[in-house]
Amino acid sequence: MGLTPRIAIDAMGGDGGVRVMVAGAAAARHRHDGLKFLLVGDEVQIKAALDNHPNLRAATDIIHTDGIVTGDDKPSQALRKARGSSMGLAIDAVKRGDAGGAVSSGNTGALMAMAKLALRTMPGIDRPALAALLPTLGDNDVVMLDLGANTDCDANNLVQFAIMGSAYARTAMGLKEPRVALLNIGTEEMKGTDVIRDAAAALRSAQGLPMRFQGFIEGDKLSRGEIDVIVHDGFSGNIALKSMEGTARFVTDLLRRAFTSSLRSKVGFLISRPATELLKHHLDPNNHNGAVFLGLNGVVLKSHGSANAAGVANAVHVCAELVEKDITRQVTEDLANFRAQTA
Amino acid sequence: MGLTPRIAIDAMGGDGGVRVMVAGAAAARHRHDGLKFLLVGDEVQIKAALDNHPNLRAATDIIHTDGIVTGDDKPSQALRKARGSSMGLAIDAVKRGDAGGAVSSGNTGALMAMAKLALRTMPGIDRPALAALLPTLGDNDVVMLDLGANTDCDANNLVQFAIMGSAYARTAMGLKEPRVALLNIGTEEMKGTDVIRDAAAALRSAQGLPMRFQGFIEGDKLSRGEIDVIVHDGFSGNIALKSMEGTARFVTDLLRRAFTSSLRSKVGFLISRPATELLKHHLDPNNHNGAVFLGLNGVVLKSHGSANAAGVANAVHVCAELVEKDITRQVTEDLANFRAQTA
Repeated sequence: MGLTPRIAIDAMGGDGGVRVMVAGAAAARHRHDGLKFLLVGDEVQIKAALDNHPNLRAATDIIHTDGIVTGDDKPSQALRKARGSSMGLAIDAVKRGDAGGAVSSGNTGALMAMAKLALRTMPGIDRPALAALLPTLGDNDVVMLDLGANTDCDANNLVQFAIMGSAYARTAMGLKEPRVALLNIGTEEMKGTDVIRDAAAALRSAQGLPMRFQGFIEGDKLSRGEIDVIVHDGFSGNIALKSMEGTARFVTDLLRRAFTSSLRSKVGFLISRPATELLKHHLDPNNHNGAVFLGLNGVVLKSHGSANAAGVANAVHVCAELVEKDITRQVTEDLANFRAQTA
Repeated sequence: MGLTPRIAIDAMGGDGGVRVMVAGAAAARHRHDGLKFLLVGDEVQIKAALDNHPNLRAATDIIHTDGIVTGDDKPSQALRKARGSSMGLAIDAVKRGDAGGAVSSGNTGALMAMAKLALRTMPGIDRPALAALLPTLGDNDVVMLDLGANTDCDANNLVQFAIMGSAYARTAMGLKEPRVALLNIGTEEMKGTDVIRDAAAALRSAQGLPMRFQGFIEGDKLSRGEIDVIVHDGFSGNIALKSMEGTARFVTDLLRRAFTSSLRSKVGFLISRPATELLKHHLDPNNHNGAVFLGLNGVVLKSHGSANAAGVANAVHVCAELVEKDITRQVTEDLANFRAQTA
């Protein structure tokens, strides 16, 4: 791949279908000049969608397929569609080197299984991790990983996640030395499980890595913006992420109820509309779209199933950044550095 | 103990000190007629605080001690203060049968360690659990347990937590057959760890218990009000609870920022003040105060360290309910019933 990477897009995944994926790619190209695309899916639908985006059409090749992975497909069923589906062919394009990275808004479990099987884990990484960006009160988002790829993890897995998450934070957010912490049930050294304590000891002793290890972080501090990379196993991460999502929705639902509870409140709400729109914007997942599978030989981005064109554009943008800045090489270097110290 | 129980109060714990604990006890007595108290701590301070509450004074005995457990005491240090501290003597009153239950706003780890050592786990329960009530969008709060007493749990522990949590929900919220679910990373039967799947299988097969087992619940549904008792190990529970607390604060902080971002928003905020006060009231931990240690030979309630008098009154009220309705007997019966079926 050249300096301006080509991104393979699974045009058939996601609730919004082909039009949203194509509109997202077009929007990303406005931000990321010279970006090229491989659109994978139903050629007729893709061509129709491209009619609205002549700028994109010129930079795009199409791979036609009728096959799709559905939201109901179990990972094992999806793997049988690896060769015929838009998702499978998008990943295959990365494997063959025809694309630098792939973006899909489809079934997460299927994408993870296919990507892992086709691309394999990169040298030095035992297990890939799913990482996402979440909003904070600070100057930048926070990277959280793993978010569901690995229910059980050992200390080595967590250390590798910390190294990969730090490379992601440097690439996606332009940080020089991201602050890294392990999610735990307390901040004292003796808190938590053996696995977490061992991972902390290893990260504490590692010198010269482009990250600042800050020890443990508790669940109530995740959105404070004081840490840039939060590391956990896929079980804890899923619990934390979903508890955060549910609570954000809970509070905004309560707010909606409160604001519609009287005429006076309704008037107040209308007047302060710009304020609540600001809140909505800050919490809108489309502004933080794109979970990335780290640790594979290739970049695969998972866009929210319900992402709109702006959300897809964000995911494509992050994918292009990761490809251009060669996150795989960054992780390899950090791993080698870490190994040399702990050997 | 008689029909109107006597509650032992650790008068020295909590950020607000003696005055808040005594005011809380007085407020609880207005709601719970005939309630009696044992106030444990510095006699001079307690007597001074009682001057404002003649109604309470008549129903109160005082146990004087100079010793206190501080917020910094590790559980091991606190255990050495078991005999001389206000916290230790309040628990001791429960052990001797001088009080039906104890309430403290002091150091949680210390309270847990002291209560466990003094009262021991009840027959049939392997480990006690810390349970709390959280607000929901539904008609009642939700019970979550365990919230930190046990980092690692086996399937039997989780089943016992479900039985204890269900008894708590019946007592504290007046539900007949609470809906019970296990916290997991998905709702399908094969999701999660072996421990969680085994616990689910055991609860699914149990018939005739006064609860409705609903399978798994994910982190984004905790506040929906569709489940009354959510069961998890202390690690996951800590992560979920703190993620919820942090996110509630995050969203309300964003809201405050948004509302103060322009003059127009400020005006809107002032007009809709009753609405935001309603939100504040709903999220105020004082309205859901009182985490209970379930599974001991005696009732011990942990009130928030920062609880105000209304919060302490809520904790005392819950404690009195648990004593009057004899939660220990309820749990014993359900356990026997469960054992008879699975034997």
